[in-house]
Amino acid sequence: MQNIKLIIEYDGTNYHGWQRQKNAVTVQEKIEGALKTLTGKNIILTGAGRTDAGVHARGQVANFRIETLKIPLERLPLAINSLLPEDIAVKHAERVPEDFHSRYWAKGKVYSYYILNSKMPSPLLRYYSYHFPRPLDIEKMRRAGSYFVGIHDFSSFMASGSSVKTTVRSINKFQLDKEKDLIRITFQGDGFLYNMVRIMVGTLLEVGEGKLPPEYIPEVLRAREREKAGITLPPKGLVLERVLY
Amino acid sequence: MQNIKLIIEYDGTNYHGWQRQKNAVTVQEKIEGALKTLTGKNIILTGAGRTDAGVHARGQVANFRIETLKIPLERLPLAINSLLPEDIAVKHAERVPEDFHSRYWAKGKVYSYYILNSKMPSPLLRYYSYHFPRPLDIEKMRRAGSYFVGIHDFSSFMASGSSVKTTVRSINKFQLDKEKDLIRITFQGDGFLYNMVRIMVGTLLEVGEGKLPPEYIPEVLRAREREKAGITLPPKGLVLERVLY
Repeated sequence: MQNIKLIIEYDGTNYHGWQRQKNAVTVQEKIEGALKTLTGKNIILTGAGRTDAGVHARGQVANFRIETLKIPLERLPLAINSLLPEDIAVKHAERVPEDFHSRYWAKGKVYSYYILNSKMPSPLLRYYSYHFPRPLDIEKMRRAGSYFVGIHDFSSFMASGSSVKTTVRSINKFQLDKEKDLIRITFQGDGFLYNMVRIMVGTLLEVGEGKLPPEYIPEVLRAREREKAGITLPPKGLVLERVLY
Repeated sequence: MQNIKLIIEYDGTNYHGWQRQKNAVTVQEKIEGALKTLTGKNIILTGAGRTDAGVHARGQVANFRIETLKIPLERLPLAINSLLPEDIAVKHAERVPEDFHSRYWAKGKVYSYYILNSKMPSPLLRYYSYHFPRPLDIEKMRRAGSYFVGIHDFSSFMASGSSVKTTVRSINKFQLDKEKDLIRITFQGDGFLYNMVRIMVGTLLEVGEGKLPPEYIPEVLRAREREKAGITLPPKGLVLERVLY
């Protein structure tokens, strides 16, 4: 039995997220379909994490098990890609230990959220950024974001109605870069709650606009109430950059 | 009479270029349609230059004349954009002298061509870059590109069958940047012949691959034969960045 790990990039615009579901087209289903054509087997992919409808990935990870792979491993990405639509591509394939599990073995994830901070929208970035037309205080946003770093109960930053064993997560890196009008906010953490990045960035925008002081973030964390945090930003600005093992 | 200059960004993927034509959807026609709705007048836009089908623009310029504009100039971009599809946006509007003409007054243009140099294609960049999977020698490409700078007869780098008064053009800047897998090649010149940037970059790729030495560029220029130059790259990697006045 071989266990194969794939690194996958996709444009999430036209998908109902990563995970297979009835009556909706998903990325997982597309890749499983390509693998079925390629191998003749019903292959089940294990993804490192679900991404929601409209969210992109530059480095999603998934693995699958197969008795024998009939094509050389280094040709597998090209072979799969030839059967996939242009908005999904396998970037890399490698053999991993038999007990490797994309989700359980993941030590962390890196997500970026892109904000276009300009008066006018950008046609060239319309699918890959959230357009925010009012001025933002970048330094205040940096200060606010640094409060997310550490081990916290993030229940204020989780979509209400989600059920998880624990809402404690560890963020070990926060970074905000700005190049011209484009702001990129990156979080690295051991795991993320449902909608967590989109709510954290939504709250940072309120700080950037001057509606809330940076010091409000620790208060929101302590409150453990979804209502204290900002809005959930749209999925199109979010990219799963990397899964760490 | 007022003369109004617009700066326009568009994603050219779904258009048959800038210039209005019968039986094909163009960017010019879309904006003229929005202006008609907004002003009630049949407005003719003068563009700084045609961009071909599939070519993008971050800074196309066009002007139009109107008796009286009924909305404040600073609100014009938002008003037009509300009537445009998401892949076209007016970024800026200003009043210019009555004899300003987007094309005749243009002193130069800046074009960029984007090449994704990676083994695997990128779904997130698929509409905005040309995917070239083999290794490239960047330094050789830089040396080759520097031969374009100056005043030359560029007829070797013009689509065959074009008719122009003169094929002499002046390129005053060539730049090649690489960030990770993405190469951006920028030309600034007083004007460009039909398909000129796409053919110049097509030729640079042959140099980058080692098929031609950098010193071959001056030879191609001297030959004044289209067949001596490389292939015409696809439009999707090309962006009209700026028009200079």
